[in-house]
Amino acid sequence: IKYNGKRTITPVDCRYRCWETLMAILVAYSVWVYPFELAFMNKSSPHATLKRLLYISEYIVDAFFSIEIILTFFVAYFDPNTQLLVWDARKIALRYLKTWFLMDIASTVPFGLIVYMCTDRHELGLFYQSVFGMLRFWRLRKVTQLFRRLEKDIRFNYVLIRCIKLVLVTLFFSHIAGCLYYILADTYPHSGKTWIGSVNPNFREGHVLDRYVASIYWSMSTMTSVGYGDVHSMNSREMTFNIVYMMFNLGLNAYLIGNISTLILEGTRTTMDFRNRIQSASEFASRNQLPKSLKEQILTFMCFRFTAENLTQQRIMDELPNPICKSICEHLFLPAVQNVYLFKYISTETLLLLVAKMRAEYIPPGEDVITKYEAPEIIYIIMSGEVEVINCEEGKEQTTKTLVTGDILGEVAAFCGKPQSFTFRAKTMSQLLKLKTSSLNETMQTKPDDHQLILQNIREKE
Amino acid sequence: IKYNGKRTITPVDCRYRCWETLMAILVAYSVWVYPFELAFMNKSSPHATLKRLLYISEYIVDAFFSIEIILTFFVAYFDPNTQLLVWDARKIALRYLKTWFLMDIASTVPFGLIVYMCTDRHELGLFYQSVFGMLRFWRLRKVTQLFRRLEKDIRFNYVLIRCIKLVLVTLFFSHIAGCLYYILADTYPHSGKTWIGSVNPNFREGHVLDRYVASIYWSMSTMTSVGYGDVHSMNSREMTFNIVYMMFNLGLNAYLIGNISTLILEGTRTTMDFRNRIQSASEFASRNQLPKSLKEQILTFMCFRFTAENLTQQRIMDELPNPICKSICEHLFLPAVQNVYLFKYISTETLLLLVAKMRAEYIPPGEDVITKYEAPEIIYIIMSGEVEVINCEEGKEQTTKTLVTGDILGEVAAFCGKPQSFTFRAKTMSQLLKLKTSSLNETMQTKPDDHQLILQNIREKE
Amino acid sequence: IKYNGKRTITPVDCRYRCWETLMAILVAYSVWVYPFELAFMNKSSPHATLKRLLYISEYIVDAFFSIEIILTFFVAYFDPNTQLLVWDARKIALRYLKTWFLMDIASTVPFGLIVYMCTDRHELGLFYQSVFGMLRFWRLRKVTQLFRRLEKDIRFNYVLIRCIKLVLVTLFFSHIAGCLYYILADTYPHSGKTWIGSVNPNFREGHVLDRYVASIYWSMSTMTSVGYGDVHSMNSREMTFNIVYMMFNLGLNAYLIGNISTLILEGTRTTMDFRNRIQSASEFASRNQLPKSLKEQILTFMCFRFTAENLTQQRIMDELPNPICKSICEHLFLPAVQNVYLFKYISTETLLLLVAKMRAEYIPPGEDVITKYEAPEIIYIIMSGEVEVINCEEGKEQTTKTLVTGDILGEVAAFCGKPQSFTFRAKTMSQLLKLKTSSLNETMQTKPDDHQLILQNIREKE
Amino acid sequence: IKYNGKRTITPVDCRYRCWETLMAILVAYSVWVYPFELAFMNKSSPHATLKRLLYISEYIVDAFFSIEIILTFFVAYFDPNTQLLVWDARKIALRYLKTWFLMDIASTVPFGLIVYMCTDRHELGLFYQSVFGMLRFWRLRKVTQLFRRLEKDIRFNYVLIRCIKLVLVTLFFSHIAGCLYYILADTYPHSGKTWIGSVNPNFREGHVLDRYVASIYWSMSTMTSVGYGDVHSMNSREMTFNIVYMMFNLGLNAYLIGNISTLILEGTRTTMDFRNRIQSASEFASRNQLPKSLKEQILTFMCFRFTAENLTQQRIMDELPNPICKSICEHLFLPAVQNVYLFKYISTETLLLLVAKMRAEYIPPGEDVITKYEAPEIIYIIMSGEVEVINCEEGKEQTTKTLVTGDILGEVAAFCGKPQSFTFRAKTMSQLLKLKTSSLNETMQTKPDDHQLILQNIREKE
Repeated sequence: IKYNGKRTITPVDCRYRCWETLMAILVAYSVWVYPFELAFMNKSSPHATLKRLLYISEYIVDAFFSIEIILTFFVAYFDPNTQLLVWDARKIALRYLKTWFLMDIASTVPFGLIVYMCTDRHELGLFYQSVFGMLRFWRLRKVTQLFRRLEKDIRFNYVLIRCIKLVLVTLFFSHIAGCLYYILADTYPHSGKTWIGSVNPNFREGHVLDRYVASIYWSMSTMTSVGYGDVHSMNSREMTFNIVYMMFNLGLNAYLIGNISTLILEGTRTTMDFRNRIQSASEFASRNQLPKSLKEQILTFMCFRFTAENLTQQRIMDELPNPICKSICEHLFLPAVQNVYLFKYISTETLLLLVAKMRAEYIPPGEDVITKYEAPEIIYIIMSGEVEVINCEEGKEQTTKTLVTGDILGEVAAFCGKPQSFTFRAKTMSQLLKLKTSSLNETMQTKPDDHQLILQNIREKE
Repeated sequence: IKYNGKRTITPVDCRYRCWETLMAILVAYSVWVYPFELAFMNKSSPHATLKRLLYISEYIVDAFFSIEIILTFFVAYFDPNTQLLVWDARKIALRYLKTWFLMDIASTVPFGLIVYMCTDRHELGLFYQSVFGMLRFWRLRKVTQLFRRLEKDIRFNYVLIRCIKLVLVTLFFSHIAGCLYYILADTYPHSGKTWIGSVNPNFREGHVLDRYVASIYWSMSTMTSVGYGDVHSMNSREMTFNIVYMMFNLGLNAYLIGNISTLILEGTRTTMDFRNRIQSASEFASRNQLPKSLKEQILTFMCFRFTAENLTQQRIMDELPNPICKSICEHLFLPAVQNVYLFKYISTETLLLLVAKMRAEYIPPGEDVITKYEAPEIIYIIMSGEVEVINCEEGKEQTTKTLVTGDILGEVAAFCGKPQSFTFRAKTMSQLLKLKTSSLNETMQTKPDDHQLILQNIREKE
Repeated sequence: IKYNGKRTITPVDCRYRCWETLMAILVAYSVWVYPFELAFMNKSSPHATLKRLLYISEYIVDAFFSIEIILTFFVAYFDPNTQLLVWDARKIALRYLKTWFLMDIASTVPFGLIVYMCTDRHELGLFYQSVFGMLRFWRLRKVTQLFRRLEKDIRFNYVLIRCIKLVLVTLFFSHIAGCLYYILADTYPHSGKTWIGSVNPNFREGHVLDRYVASIYWSMSTMTSVGYGDVHSMNSREMTFNIVYMMFNLGLNAYLIGNISTLILEGTRTTMDFRNRIQSASEFASRNQLPKSLKEQILTFMCFRFTAENLTQQRIMDELPNPICKSICEHLFLPAVQNVYLFKYISTETLLLLVAKMRAEYIPPGEDVITKYEAPEIIYIIMSGEVEVINCEEGKEQTTKTLVTGDILGEVAAFCGKPQSFTFRAKTMSQLLKLKTSSLNETMQTKPDDHQLILQNIREKE
Repeated sequence: IKYNGKRTITPVDCRYRCWETLMAILVAYSVWVYPFELAFMNKSSPHATLKRLLYISEYIVDAFFSIEIILTFFVAYFDPNTQLLVWDARKIALRYLKTWFLMDIASTVPFGLIVYMCTDRHELGLFYQSVFGMLRFWRLRKVTQLFRRLEKDIRFNYVLIRCIKLVLVTLFFSHIAGCLYYILADTYPHSGKTWIGSVNPNFREGHVLDRYVASIYWSMSTMTSVGYGDVHSMNSREMTFNIVYMMFNLGLNAYLIGNISTLILEGTRTTMDFRNRIQSASEFASRNQLPKSLKEQILTFMCFRFTAENLTQQRIMDELPNPICKSICEHLFLPAVQNVYLFKYISTETLLLLVAKMRAEYIPPGEDVITKYEAPEIIYIIMSGEVEVINCEEGKEQTTKTLVTGDILGEVAAFCGKPQSFTFRAKTMSQLLKLKTSSLNETMQTKPDDHQLILQNIREKE
C-alpha cells in the first residue's frame, strides 16, 4: 500500500476504506461481547467452552486494533483549514500523538493478561474488570466515524443509513442495560428479592440464553416504555438503576422520534410543495368562480409545469463549471443539432461552439414558446415533443402547422432581425434547446464561412 | 377498452383507475386474511364453514390477480425521462417482463392447490405455508401505488389520505403481530407456559373471535406502548418475538409521530405567519410607545393587508401561460370594464386586448392607491369597494368625493400626461383593476378609431 | 342590539362576542355532562338530587341554544370572496338555512321530553339515548369556532390558547372513554368478569365519585400509554373497546407531540438564528487563526448587530401605508428634530414634511455611519447614543470630537455638495434618523423661505 | 465591587456572574430539599441529625438570598428600548421595587421561625408549611434566568445547555411528584389501602432512602409512561393525583420530544442540504444518461464546491464593519501579499490600502478562475493550492504552466487594459485573493510613486 513513493496511505484509498469498515465491525463486536461476558460468563458459570471462545476472540480483536494503531501513523489526513491532504509523516505522527494515541493505547492493553501474569490470579474483581472494560468503549469512535462517512456517501441511501444507526444505538443500549440489570440481580445477597429471582427462584441454573433473553426482554420493554410489569424491580438498588435507565430512555425516545420526524419532513416536502401550489391554484379558480373548463385547464397546466421544472433542473447546470458544462452539452445536444437543416454542412468545430451555449428547457403543453411580434432574441430547437405554429389574425387563432423533433423555431426572424411573425405554442410536453441570437451572432462573426452556409440553408428552405 | 386503435389502455383512463382501486382492495383483503387463516384456521379448528369460505375467497382473489397480470401488458406507461405516454405494445411488455412480472406470477400461483394435486396431502406444513404466503405480501405494491396516486390527487384531502394510510399501516402490523403471537402460543408444547394459556388454560376451546380479540388486544397494547401486563410473555420464544416487535414499534411510533408532526407543521404555518407579523407590529408600537389609537390603526391595517394578499394571489396569475391568462381576464373583467364610461362605444375586440393586460389587486382600507403629484403610470378601475378622492392642500387632507364600483381612477392624468392632481385612498377593502398607461397607449396606437372614442368620452365627462 | 337601523348585529360587536363565549361554555358543559349522565345517572342510581339538577341544567342549555338559533338569523357575516360584511337579512337567513340550520335544530329538540309526553315512559332505552345524545356533539362546532377565533386574536397568547385547546381535547376524550368503559362494565351480565368488578365486586354500591375517578384513572392511564395494568380489560367486549381506544390514542398522542413540537420550533427560532450567526463568525475566526482580540471584537459586533436589527424593524415601517407612516414619524421624531440647530426658526409645516421622509436606524458600536470622501447622500440626526468624529490622515485615525443626542451629521457636505471630510463612527449603540439629501432638497425647493433660514443656521454655526 | 465611581455593579461583571451562578445553585438546592423535608422529615421521622442539618442549610440559603435582595439595588440594568446600561441608583431601585421586590421578600421571610417565636409551637401544620413553601418556588426565576443567559452564551454548547435544562426539568418534576405521592400515602388513614402500604405494610419503619427511592421509582415510571404497575394507586385520592400527574406528563413528554426534535432538525440541516444537492446532480446525470466519467466529474465537483462555500464564508465578512474588516485583511493577507513580485519595494502604507480591498475565495478544482478573452476586471493572488494556465487554440486545450502560492493571475491584462490571453483553471482546491482592477487603479492614482514601482516590476518580469 505504498503511495507517492512516501510510504503513506491516502484515506480515500479503497483498501484502506475496507480495513476501516472491518475495524468498525470488530469494535462493534468487542463492545457488544464485553458486557455479556461480564454478566453471564463469571466464575460460577458452567459454559466453559463459550467462555474460552469469547476470551480468544477478544485477544484477536486486540491484535487487530494494535495493527490499526501502527497503521494510523502512515495515513495522510485532510487539513481542516485548507482541505488539502497532508502527506508529511512527521506531521501525521505529531497529530496522532497529540490527539487520540494515548486513549487508543489504553483501550488496547490487555490488563487482564498483565494482572494474571503478575499476580497469578486468574480473574480480576468485578470492579476492576468494569473499569478496564470501560476503556474499550473508547473504540466506539471508529463506528461513529464509519457512520459519519456513510452519511455523506451518496452511494448509500441516507434514510437507510440513519435508520440502521438508530437501530444499532437502540440495540446497543438495551443490551448494556440488560446485562447490567442481570449483574445487579446476580450479585444481590437475597436472591428472592431480585427482579429475576422473584419470578424464577433458581434462575442461575437456567440456560444462559434464557437468562439473556429475560434481561433483554426487561430492558427492551422499559426502553420502549411498554412496561408490562411482569418483570419489575424488587429492591432499592434495582429501583435506582431503573430510574436512571428510564430517565435515559426518555431522552433516547425523543432522539429517535426527532430523527425520524426530520427524515419524514424532508421526504414529504416535494409532495407538499406540489399540493400547496395546486391547492392555491384551485382556490383561486373557486374564489373567482371561473368556469369549470378553465379551472381544469389551469390545474392541468400547473401539474405539467411542476413536472417540467423537475425535468429541467437548470439550477444544476448553472452551478457546474465551464469545462464540465461543455462536455454535457456536447454529449446531450450535438447529435440532435447536427440533424437540424440550418446546420447542414457546418463544421463540427463551429457546432461545438454553438452547442456549448445552448440550454435545454422543458415547456409544458399550452405555454407559448414564442409570441407573435416578439423581438427575435432566442432560437429554439425541438429535442422532443410537438410545437404548434399559430397564426393569430384579428383576434382569432389558427393552427397552421405542427413542428416535431429536429425542427427549429424563430431562426428566420433571428437572421433577418425582424419580429416573429407567428406564435409558437407547445402542444405536448416538449424539450427545447434555447440559443440566444446574440450568442449565435458572436460565433458567426468568428466563422464567416459557416455563416454563409447557414444563410444559404435558410434561403434554400424558403 | 380500446384506445387509439391500438388495443392499449391509458393509465389515466377512468375505468382502469376503478379496476386498480378494486385490485388494491382485493390485495388488502387477501393480505389481511392470510395470517388469520394461518393462525386460527388450522387442522384442529372447528369452524369448517368459515374455513371453506376463506379458501374460496382466496382463489377468487388469485383469479382477479391473474387477469391483472394479463392486463398489465396492455397498459401504456409514462416514460420517466420525457413524461410522454408510451403506447408501443412491445415496449410495454418488455418493461413489465424486466421489472415485476416474475414476482407477480410467483405471488399468484396457488401452491397449496398444486401440492394438493401432486401429493394428495390436504395441508402443507406450517413452514411451507408461511414461505408461500410471504410471496403474497409482494402484492402490497398495488396498495402502495394506490396511496401514492391518491396523495398526489388534489380531489382528495391530503391530510385525510395520509391519516388513513397511517391507520391502515398500524392496523396491518398489529394484525400480523397478533396472529404470529397466537401461533407461538398454539404451537408451544407446554400449553400452560404461554401468554394465553397462563390466563385461560383451555383457550383452544374458546370462540375464534375471542382468541383473535385477545391477540389483537396484546399486540395493540404493546404497539401503543401501553403494556398493561395482564397478558405477557411466558417463555423465551415469546420473549424473543416480543423484543423484536417492541423494537419495531419504537420505529413505527416515531414514524407515526413524525408524519403527524409534519402535517401539523404545514397546517399551522399560515396562522403562525400571520401571528408573527402582527406580533412584531405590536411590539414595534409598544417599544416606540406609540399612542393607543395609532397602534390600533397599525394592527388593523396589518390584518387587512394579510387578507388582501391572500385574496389577490397574483403569484398564480404570473405562473399561468398567456392563453389561459387571457381567458381568465376575459371571464373576470370584461363585464365590469364594458360598463366603465371611458370605454363606452368601444369595439369588443379592443376591449379584449385591454382586458388581457389588466391585473386585479386588493387594496386594504387606508392605503393610498394614487398619491398626488405621482406620475400617471397606472389607471385603476374599481371592481368592488369604495375609494376616497382626497385633496391635500397646505398639509390638510380633505375628502372631496367617494368613488364606487365601475368608477375609474387617474385616467385624465394618463391621457393628458400630467401628474395626478388628487390622492386616492381606499376606504374599504377594494378590488381594483390595474392597467399600465403604456399598455393602454400601445393598444390605442393600433386602434385609432377607438382612441378617438375614448378621448371623446373623457371630454364629454368633463 | 340594533345596528345601522337594520336590526342586524355585526359579528365583531363586543356584546355578541360575549354571548358567543357564553354559548361555547354552555355547549362545553352540556357535552361534558351528557356521557356522565348516561353512565352514572341511570335508573338504579341512588343520587336523585344530582340527577334532577343535571336534568334541569340540560333544559336551560337547550333554551339558550334555541335563542342562539333565532339570533343567528340577525347576525351579519363576512363574504369570503370580498371580505365585506353582508347586512342583508334575506341573504343571512338563506345562508343559515342552507348550511347549519337543520343540524342546529336537531341537536336542540328535547327528544327525551317528547318521548316522555307521547309514550309516558320516563326513560328512553340506552340505545336511543345515545343516538339522540350524539346529536348534541354537533354543537361542539361552537367551541371549535371560539378557539379558531382566539387563535387569531393577538390579545391572547398563542401558545397559551393552543395549550388550553390541547388540554381540553385530552380531557374531553378521556372523559368520554372513561364513561363508555364504565357503561360496558355496568351492562355486562357477569359482573365479576368486568374491569371494575374484578377489583371491587360490589362496585355499584360505591360512591358515584369513586366510580368516576376509577373510570378516568383507567382512561387516562391508557391514553398516556402508562398502562399500570392494575385495572384492565376482562372480556372480549372490553378488549375490543380498549383496542379502538388505544388506536385512537396513538393518533392523539402524535397530535399532541406534533402540536407542541411546532410551538417549540417556532419559539426557539430566534435564539437558534442568533447562535448560528455567532457560531459561524466564531468558526471563521478560528479557521483563519485570527488573534484573540480581533475575534472578541468580531463576536461583540455580531451580538450588537443582532440587537440593532431587532430594534430597527424597518420591515414593518415599509409595510405600512403612507398616512400611518406619517403619523408615526411625527409622533416619534418631531420633538427631537425641533431641537436640532439646523432647523431653528423653521415652520412646523416644513418640519412635518421633512419628518415624514425620515427613517430611524440603530447603529451598533464600531460601525462607520459616514466614511470620509463618501458622497453626501444622507444626513443623520442622533436620537440617542454617541458618535465619534474621526479624522484619518496618512493612515492614522484620530478621534477629534464626540457627538451626542440632538447633533446632526454630514449636513455641511450635503448643503455644499462636496464629499464628507470626516469619518463618523458609532461609539455606543446609537439610534440615528436618516434623511436623504435628495428628499431634503426637494422639500427646500417648495419652501424657499425655510431654505434661507437653514443656510443661515449653517453659516452661524461655522 | 465599585464601578464608575458610582457604587453600582455592571451585570456583565465577571464576579457578579459568579455570584448569580452561586445563587442559582443555592436556589435549586433549596427548592429541591423543601418537598423532601415536607414528605420524609416530619414529626415522627427518626432521622434527627439529618433533619437538623437540612434546617440549618435552609437558613443559610435564606441569608444568602437576603444579601441578593440588597445587592439587586446596586446592579445596573439594560434598558430594553435603547439597549444602554442604566447606572442611575434611583432608577434601579424604582424598577426593582415596582417589579419583583415584594415577591423576593415574601419568599425569604422565615415564616417557620416567626411562628415558632410567636406561638412557641415547633412545627407548623402541613397546610401552612405547604403554603409558605410554595413561595420558595418563586426563587426558581433565578435558575430560569441563568439558563436563558447560558443559552445565549456562545462559550457553552447550545445542545448541551438545552439537554441539561431538560434533564433538570424532568428530575425536578419527578422529585416533586414522588414527594407529594408519598405524603398522600403517609397521611391516608387506612395504611394498607395506599400505594406503598399495599406492597410493604410497615413502610414507615424502612430507611428514609428506601422510601424516597420507591417514590421516585413510581414517579419516574409514570412520567416516562413505562408504568410497570407493581406500584399503583389504591384509593380515589391517589387516583386523582395520578390522573393529574399523567395529564401533566403527557405535556412534559411532548415538550421533551419537541425540544430534541428541534435540536436534531437544526443539527442535520447541513448534511441534508449537501445530500440534496448531490442527489439532484446525480439524478440529473442519470436522467440524461450522461457517461459515467462525466457523472463522476459532476459529483466530485459538487462536493468540492460545497466545501469551498463553507470555507469562504464571505457572508460574514460582508456583515462586519469597515475597521474590523481592515484588521482581518491586514492580519490574513499582508504577509502573503508582501511576497508577491508585483508589490516588491512598495510602501507598507499602500499595501495596507490594497489589502483592505481584497477578498479571499476558495475555488474548487476544475473551475475556471479566468477565462480567455474575458475583460481584466479582477486580479487574483494565490494563497494556497495550484492553478493551471491553459492555452486554448482551435478548440484544443493545452496546459502550459502551473502556478503556486504567491503567484499572481491576470495582472498584465489588468495593467495593459487588454483581454486575458489565457484561461486559468484551479487544479486543486485553491484559496485566491481577489482584487478588483478598479480598486487597484483608484489606489494607484493616489500613490504615483508606487504605481511606477509596480509598472517596473511588471516590465522586469517580462
